Amino acid sequence: MAYVSAPSDITRNHATKRLAALATPPGALGRLGDLAVWVAACQGQVPPVPVDNVRLVIFAGDHGVAAHGVSAFSPAITGAMVRTFLFGKAGVNALASAHGVAVRVLDLGVDEDFDDLDEGVRLALTAHKIRRGSGAIHLEDALTLDETRAALAAGAAVAREEIAAGAQLLISGDMGIGNTTPAAAMVAAGLGLPASEVVGRGTGIDDAALLHKTAVIDAALARAGARTGDPIETLAALGSADLAASTGFLLAAAQEGRPVLLDGLMSVACALTADRIEPGAVGWYAAGHRSTEPAQSLALAKMGLEPLLDLGLRLGEGSGAVAAVPVVRSAAALLRDVALLSELVS
Amino acid sequence: MAYVSAPSDITRNHATKRLAALATPPGALGRLGDLAVWVAACQGQVPPVPVDNVRLVIFAGDHGVAAHGVSAFSPAITGAMVRTFLFGKAGVNALASAHGVAVRVLDLGVDEDFDDLDEGVRLALTAHKIRRGSGAIHLEDALTLDETRAALAAGAAVAREEIAAGAQLLISGDMGIGNTTPAAAMVAAGLGLPASEVVGRGTGIDDAALLHKTAVIDAALARAGARTGDPIETLAALGSADLAASTGFLLAAAQEGRPVLLDGLMSVACALTADRIEPGAVGWYAAGHRSTEPAQSLALAKMGLEPLLDLGLRLGEGSGAVAAVPVVRSAAALLRDVALLSELVS
Repeated sequence: MAYVSAPSDITRNHATKRLAALATPPGALGRLGDLAVWVAACQGQVPPVPVDNVRLVIFAGDHGVAAHGVSAFSPAITGAMVRTFLFGKAGVNALASAHGVAVRVLDLGVDEDFDDLDEGVRLALTAHKIRRGSGAIHLEDALTLDETRAALAAGAAVAREEIAAGAQLLISGDMGIGNTTPAAAMVAAGLGLPASEVVGRGTGIDDAALLHKTAVIDAALARAGARTGDPIETLAALGSADLAASTGFLLAAAQEGRPVLLDGLMSVACALTADRIEPGAVGWYAAGHRSTEPAQSLALAKMGLEPLLDLGLRLGEGSGAVAAVPVVRSAAALLRDVALLSELVS
Repeated sequence: MAYVSAPSDITRNHATKRLAALATPPGALGRLGDLAVWVAACQGQVPPVPVDNVRLVIFAGDHGVAAHGVSAFSPAITGAMVRTFLFGKAGVNALASAHGVAVRVLDLGVDEDFDDLDEGVRLALTAHKIRRGSGAIHLEDALTLDETRAALAAGAAVAREEIAAGAQLLISGDMGIGNTTPAAAMVAAGLGLPASEVVGRGTGIDDAALLHKTAVIDAALARAGARTGDPIETLAALGSADLAASTGFLLAAAQEGRPVLLDGLMSVACALTADRIEPGAVGWYAAGHRSTEPAQSLALAKMGLEPLLDLGLRLGEGSGAVAAVPVVRSAAALLRDVALLSELVS
């Protein structure tokens, strides 16, 4: 695999100097100043160009644990939501349309064949499909190691396709009933924490289901044992096809030097795993939206990232990151378009 | 004066029902769900139409207290910043351009005549000018009562012009070195608090200047005495021409039934004052960005408003509200464009 270089320190220094030279009071741009410097460093140019071409890929897949009482919803919803994305009628479509973000949905491991769809649509949707459903992680591995490597490679190929299509900023979303269980397990593995510290209510389970979900994650961690020390073994034992592909996507973005705006728990769990595979990948990531899932905040803190928004969204699908895209655009616009003090004085 | 009607309860109920009928998990839209319902109620239609036409008016004026050590900057900066707005090179211009927000700047009380500007530009800028500078509030009234009423009427006329130009959402910004001192005094008067509880560092004063600023505000409150019980007398004694006009602008928006996205301390102090003049005006206001000024948070809490963003911006100029415009658009898009569960099932 390619190695990850950090965003340009030279450009970062130039951007920091431009920020200080703007005709604004010192520090008046707040977090948008820091964000603008990061955007410039990722682009390798000062001032940064407008971040017009933003592309979201939603990785969809089912999770064996969903049949074991960890979610408020039936696994059949995964395929239904994939169809809703294709129809352009899900929450993330509404946000993406409002903010000019391209949306692509891929079936990595949904537990159905989508035979009802037009062939062209179905072939595009399932071009990178690894398997139908991933293993119930408290009982069995999610994926074989070969499947894990295939999913990582698929995600990386997709990232390169999106970059070839002009992406200036990438987002990964996830769809799959039960997905917060493997994602929380990946965070627990990455941070060395027990399930009780990372588990959350997902789309809305009650107290009894939360206790059960905690036990499922602990059982999965116990089953994986020392394999959690390796990030790729972690994906095989505790992840899923969609989460492994998303990890490959985020890793390739960092390798190719393209910035990423992270979404909620799934996106952040994959970012943490990508940074375990290639330390330094996190230099290419910013956090879009604070999740109500504890594992997301823990993983972000470990990576030194602070979300731009905290609006209580818990739609998944990449929606929190898409809602935060205008904040990135605000930051770039300020560093690009505000007068320098020297221009006003002269 | 016209009275303020509340946003439509009937529409609010319809919007709440549509929100609950969307094909998303209950509560998954978080604060964007509540915001979308408010937008729909203000518009009087479900689903809401996209919030495309957003218009910011920046009210500029100088403050007598600025010559008395309450600001880190020279009063001459006020006029310089007005020129920067006109050149389109200030922070708020960059944000407004990025997010398609119209910007208009008006000189209500800047302490210069702008004779260097082209006549057409100068006449438009100063069409509503009340006076050159407002009184140093710890020593004298900011305005006469006649000037106060003229400024309120000017702001109201401007709001009606912006609404006639198609504004679906209004924003008021303020520019004037020293402006956080009268604005904090207006909040202290409105909430019955001493200066020590409302005072903040503005664009960046040190500890000694902060103590001095506190003493200036307390002297102003003591000088105004019982007149702080009346919101219009409060504007005359403690405000300024720009702040009185901004108050009239926000009041007219509520009277005309047009929603407003509030900015930082100045905007919020004027909103509080407008709501004192016409209780219920606040029903038309949402808060865009959390200010680092304590008075803003206190006034927002009194009005029951919670900002959408908290990015550490302290540019003034309406910039925090402009940065939050995409959040309002996200909310409207979700309530408008997401499928209803009934559409997917049928």
